[in-house]
Amino acid sequence: MSNQSDIKLTEVALRDGSHAVSHQYTVGQVTSVAKALNEAHVPYIEVSHGDGLGGSSLQYGQSLTDELKLIEAAVSVTDFSKIAVLLLPGIGTIEDLKKAAGLGAKMARVATHVTEADVSKQHIETAKDLGMETVGFLMMSHMAPASKLVEQAKLMENYGADTVYVVDSAGALLPHEVKERIAALRQELTVNIGFHAHNNLSLAMGNTLAAIEAGATRIDGSIRCLGAGAGNTQTEVLVAVLERMGLKTGVDLYKMMDIAEDIVAPILPKPQEINRDSLTLGYAGVYSSFLLHANRAAKRFNVDSRDILVELGRREIIGGQEDMIIDVAAELAKAKAPV
Amino acid sequence: MSNQSDIKLTEVALRDGSHAVSHQYTVGQVTSVAKALNEAHVPYIEVSHGDGLGGSSLQYGQSLTDELKLIEAAVSVTDFSKIAVLLLPGIGTIEDLKKAAGLGAKMARVATHVTEADVSKQHIETAKDLGMETVGFLMMSHMAPASKLVEQAKLMENYGADTVYVVDSAGALLPHEVKERIAALRQELTVNIGFHAHNNLSLAMGNTLAAIEAGATRIDGSIRCLGAGAGNTQTEVLVAVLERMGLKTGVDLYKMMDIAEDIVAPILPKPQEINRDSLTLGYAGVYSSFLLHANRAAKRFNVDSRDILVELGRREIIGGQEDMIIDVAAELAKAKAPV
Repeated sequence: MSNQSDIKLTEVALRDGSHAVSHQYTVGQVTSVAKALNEAHVPYIEVSHGDGLGGSSLQYGQSLTDELKLIEAAVSVTDFSKIAVLLLPGIGTIEDLKKAAGLGAKMARVATHVTEADVSKQHIETAKDLGMETVGFLMMSHMAPASKLVEQAKLMENYGADTVYVVDSAGALLPHEVKERIAALRQELTVNIGFHAHNNLSLAMGNTLAAIEAGATRIDGSIRCLGAGAGNTQTEVLVAVLERMGLKTGVDLYKMMDIAEDIVAPILPKPQEINRDSLTLGYAGVYSSFLLHANRAAKRFNVDSRDILVELGRREIIGGQEDMIIDVAAELAKAKAPV
Repeated sequence: MSNQSDIKLTEVALRDGSHAVSHQYTVGQVTSVAKALNEAHVPYIEVSHGDGLGGSSLQYGQSLTDELKLIEAAVSVTDFSKIAVLLLPGIGTIEDLKKAAGLGAKMARVATHVTEADVSKQHIETAKDLGMETVGFLMMSHMAPASKLVEQAKLMENYGADTVYVVDSAGALLPHEVKERIAALRQELTVNIGFHAHNNLSLAMGNTLAAIEAGATRIDGSIRCLGAGAGNTQTEVLVAVLERMGLKTGVDLYKMMDIAEDIVAPILPKPQEINRDSLTLGYAGVYSSFLLHANRAAKRFNVDSRDILVELGRREIIGGQEDMIIDVAAELAKAKAPV
C-alpha cells in the first residue's frame, strides 16, 4: 500500500477521548482500538491522559491505568501506525517524554496556550534529540488573531517543530476564522500546518474543510466523536468526506466505519451529542474546566451560569485564573439586583 | 419584540423528527414542544407526518396520532410562531392541504424530487388560494447541477412559491456544492432562498453557513438534531452560531438551549449520532428508504450493503426504482465471484 496521502490524520480518541471516559481506559480497550486503527492504516494514534503525559492527578482526573502501560500496549499492536503522545509543559515533564519515547512513541505533540509557545522550547528540542517527529500545538487559538498565531507558531518552528497545529480547544471558531488563521500560517511558515477541531458549535467538520482549503495537511479526528466536550471531527466521517472530495488519506473507510460501530461505540459511556453544557462552552469560548466552577458560583449568587461563562469568554480568562469566576458571578448578581 | 431578522428559521423537529420517533408523537409532546418554541419566538414550526401530510401508511410508517390532531394542538398553543405543513404531491392531497389550512396552518411547503418541480403546480396554487405562505422544496438537490436547480426553482417561483428551498435530503452535499447551488438560485430568482440540511456527513452546520454566505435567508433546523437520519442543522446551536456572527434570528438562545435539554432530549428514543448507516447514506447520496432493501439484498447475494448503496448513488437511482437494488446486488456478486 502506498504511503502517499494528501492529508495525514491523527486519531485522538485514545487521548482527547480519555476525557469522555473519565480517564478509565483499560489496556484491553486501548489494545483493541489501536490494533484496529493500525489495520485501517491510520498514520498516527495519540495515546496519553486527556491532559497529556503526567495528567493523571486529583486536579485533572486520575487514570485507571498508568498511561505508560497504555502507550506500551498501543505500540505493541501497531506496525503501520505511529504512536503519538501529548505533552503540556507544566503538567508533563521531560522525564515523562523520555519514558514514552523509550516505550516506542514516535511523535511528540507539545501543547501550550496560544500566547505561550515559548514554554515549548525545551520539550520540542528534547523530542527532536530523542528522534521523535515533533508537533507544536497552539491551544485556544480562537483567543488570538492570525498575526499573533503566526508569531507564536514561528517560535515553535524555530524550536524544531515539524508541524504546527491550530487547536480550537473550545470549539469556538467559525469557518472564516479558521481559514484566516490557517492561511496566515501557511503563508509565513515552511513546516506542515495542522488543525484540531472540537464540535461544540457543530462546526468541527465544516471548520476542518475550511482548514484544508486554506492549506492544512495534518488533521486530528476522533472516531465516533470520542473526544472532550462534544468531541472532535468524527474521523470515519472525515475519511468519507475527503474521499468524496477526491483527497487521499490512505485510510480504509469501511474499516473505520466498522471500528466506530463495533469497537468504539460500545466504549462510550453515552453517545456524543451537543448538549446545553458543551454548546455553552463553544458559544462562550472558554475552557471546559470552567463549567463546574461557574455552576457552583451561579447557585451561590443566583445568576445564570451561562452569563458567567459568556462574560469569562469576553474577558478572555484562561486556565489558572479561576478566581475570576467568583468575581464575575458577584458582579452579575449586583448588576441584576433591584435598585 | 421586533420581528426584524436576518435569517428566518423553520423548526422541523415535529415533522422531520417524526422519522426519528417512528411517527409516534403524542398530542402532549407536540403541545409542549410547540408551546415552548413559540415562547422562544421561532418564526415557523413544521408539523406533519415525516413524509408530509397523508404520509401515515404501512409504506411510510403509521402515525400514532392523526397528524391533523397534532397540527390542531400546535396551532392552539402558538400565537407568535406560524405552523407549517409539508406536502409531497402523490403522498398528500389537495384535500389534506385544505384540512390543514382549516385548522390554522399558515405555511405550505410543497416538496418534489429535484427534477420534478412541475408536479407542485396545483398544490402551490391551491395553497396561495387558501391564503397560505408557500414554499417550494427541492429534495435530493445533490443530484442536480446548479443549472438544473435554477430551472426547477423557477417553475416553483412561477407557480407562486414565496420561497424555494435547496433540500439536501441525503446529507450528501459539501460546502462548496451548497454555495454554488444557492448562489445560482440567488442570482436567477427574486423569491427567498432557503436551505434544509442533513447531518450524515457532519456538515449540516458548515453547509448551512455556506448557504447563508451565498444568500439563503430561510433555514431549517431540528432542535437537538431531532430529524431523520443523523438529524438536521441543530437549531439551538445554529442560533448560537448566528449570534456569534452578528446575524439576527429573533429567537431566544437560552430558551432554545433549555427546550433542547429539558423537553426534546427526553423525547428522543436515543441520542442522535452519525453511525454506520447514516454515514453510508450520506456518503452514497441515496434515500434512507434504500437501506433496508440494500441490507436484505446484501445478505441474499453475500456482498457488502455499502457497495450496493454506493453503486445506487452512482447510478442516481431514486425513490420508486427499488427494483434496481436487487439488480445491483446481483451484479456485484457476479463481479466478485471467482472466475
